Amino acid sequence: MENKIYDTPVLFIDRSRIRQNYLDLKKALPPFRIAYAIKSNSHPEIIDILKKEGSHFETASIAEIEKLLALGVKADEIVLSNPVKAPDAIRRALEHGVTIQSFDSVEELEKFKPHAGASAPLSHRVRPQLRIVVPNEGSMWPLSGKFGADEELWPAIFQYMKDHEIPLDGITFHPGSQCETISGWDSAMYLTWRCIEIAREYGLNPTTINIGGGFPVNLGRKIPTAAEIGKVVIRHLKEWERKGFKPQDLIVEPGRFISGSAGVLATKVVGVARREKTWAFLDCGVFTGMMETIDGITYPMLFSSKAEKETAMLCGPSCDSVDKMYEAQIPAAKPGDAILFLSAGAYTSVYASEFNGFLGPKMVFIDQIKDPADLFSLLA
Amino acid sequence: MENKIYDTPVLFIDRSRIRQNYLDLKKALPPFRIAYAIKSNSHPEIIDILKKEGSHFETASIAEIEKLLALGVKADEIVLSNPVKAPDAIRRALEHGVTIQSFDSVEELEKFKPHAGASAPLSHRVRPQLRIVVPNEGSMWPLSGKFGADEELWPAIFQYMKDHEIPLDGITFHPGSQCETISGWDSAMYLTWRCIEIAREYGLNPTTINIGGGFPVNLGRKIPTAAEIGKVVIRHLKEWERKGFKPQDLIVEPGRFISGSAGVLATKVVGVARREKTWAFLDCGVFTGMMETIDGITYPMLFSSKAEKETAMLCGPSCDSVDKMYEAQIPAAKPGDAILFLSAGAYTSVYASEFNGFLGPKMVFIDQIKDPADLFSLLA
Repeated sequence: MENKIYDTPVLFIDRSRIRQNYLDLKKALPPFRIAYAIKSNSHPEIIDILKKEGSHFETASIAEIEKLLALGVKADEIVLSNPVKAPDAIRRALEHGVTIQSFDSVEELEKFKPHAGASAPLSHRVRPQLRIVVPNEGSMWPLSGKFGADEELWPAIFQYMKDHEIPLDGITFHPGSQCETISGWDSAMYLTWRCIEIAREYGLNPTTINIGGGFPVNLGRKIPTAAEIGKVVIRHLKEWERKGFKPQDLIVEPGRFISGSAGVLATKVVGVARREKTWAFLDCGVFTGMMETIDGITYPMLFSSKAEKETAMLCGPSCDSVDKMYEAQIPAAKPGDAILFLSAGAYTSVYASEFNGFLGPKMVFIDQIKDPADLFSLLA
Repeated sequence: MENKIYDTPVLFIDRSRIRQNYLDLKKALPPFRIAYAIKSNSHPEIIDILKKEGSHFETASIAEIEKLLALGVKADEIVLSNPVKAPDAIRRALEHGVTIQSFDSVEELEKFKPHAGASAPLSHRVRPQLRIVVPNEGSMWPLSGKFGADEELWPAIFQYMKDHEIPLDGITFHPGSQCETISGWDSAMYLTWRCIEIAREYGLNPTTINIGGGFPVNLGRKIPTAAEIGKVVIRHLKEWERKGFKPQDLIVEPGRFISGSAGVLATKVVGVARREKTWAFLDCGVFTGMMETIDGITYPMLFSSKAEKETAMLCGPSCDSVDKMYEAQIPAAKPGDAILFLSAGAYTSVYASEFNGFLGPKMVFIDQIKDPADLFSLLA
């Protein structure tokens, strides 16, 4: 551990844990390219650690692609998995050489058209990946609705591809962020096979399979391990192989799984108001990183105080009524008490704004956090 | 109008409208100091326009205070209306000379104690303002719960102030953001009077009355004007005067009322997906400024397209499932169509993060926007 002292809020990131999470997933899914979803935490140091391990990267925007290129990531190590993009974003990504691009509608295929035919140079020719809808019922944040084509839409999409000679390079799905049941992957793989079969009826031959993200982190409930999820996915791949289909490119896009468990968000109580409820005001809130709390996340917590516990509504420091997190049992709070939020490395710092003059957590990298409770000694 | 062309998203701010909103409120509430809530939009140019008109400013954090001081605002033109602050924030604000500070609990008074007595130099002596709970039923974003002491808590608070010789400088309330019924101010003023009477029973003599913000902007529904709200407030003040009470310092803290109606957020459609629903993907979403949509706001809109209207779910450009705004009737969308969101100058740009590599709107100031539809010609 280091000897420096840090003001809160601060997001400690465990370098060894980033690396280990990557290796665990690689072990669970050996034939897959791992493309880290940088939206979960795009800090250059995380990208650098993963790059050294051989990771590839998943993006949604030109800014994310250009950030990676500037950090020395090669274009063919980047996938653009945003199914709906500005026409200009498609063109610029291809100019950079980022060819794997998702879509989920005929409307998006229209934008691909100029970049799909033989007239486009091979290095800049789009490799369209159809994002299909799969059940998201085990996920805390279902992604279906906004994204994905369901089975009814496949015929029109495939007909359009056939008519306009746009190849279907691959199929992709997302079981939803923080997917806590293994059945999510099982049914998604069945649906993917069905999609492959229907695509073939239109003369299309997808060879890339991208199983998205959704691998969960410990938020205090029972979750499947990467190994358990990998086993289900690999079982399907073997079945496909028996049927004569072996994908040429397999991709997985973990975000939270890599960066989530590696992060501990340290905050302090700035004030308490004991009214009908007890309100504990922290120096980090919804607008400074804890955005997912408004959508239901609750983090495992550690406390510096040994006081008797009480129920308190945790809220952020701003004057905004939305800046409320969740009710929890915490030691009777007083200003200066420290609270550590575990599994908070993903989807926290990246959401921070500077609303009301409160800044998001500074990020501090530590070689290894043996026991999160040791972090209390690093706080001012 | 200017001749430059701007990429979307862009937030156009009408300088003359900022000024006019200030003057309208001044006219509605002549004896009041107007303290603009910079959290609604803290762009230096807005602060500068208002400063030249004589406006004061409302803050919630040290960063906001120091921003204003750096822009040449004087400390006695700043109020710190965050009822729960870190002890260090209270001290630093007082060192700067920002003495008007809110509280709503005995716990916060404990932090005021070292700064309230005769031992503290007068220029750095806190002027405590009790934030009371008032009905927020006409407000789109009720603030009670997180903030404010209700009547049951006043005796304990006043007894503590009496015991520790902490003066009660003033009383403040907030009818809730975007308060659309005039009764909110009426009942708030009745409650304030009741609070004054009870305070006097403890030998406390509040002389500052701060009526907070909540003045609504046009979101397509009938709303009371500043003049109508002012009439109600002034009627109460006259009644109080008949009873022998004339506040020495009157403060009002508009945010949205000043900056909201002055802003037009221009976005473009980046893509459309026609599925069970039609999804219109814009280049500005929840994480790039349209945060209040997840809490129910819908903006009046103007469209560049004359196509037949259809129901579409408006969503932002990111891959996040939360990045969904609201369903609206819009002309059948295609990439490149422009949409203007009116009354969007407040609580938009200040919430923007850089999530997923998508940036919030650039802000562009225009002397006067005669007709918002003219703005279409300024878009790339």
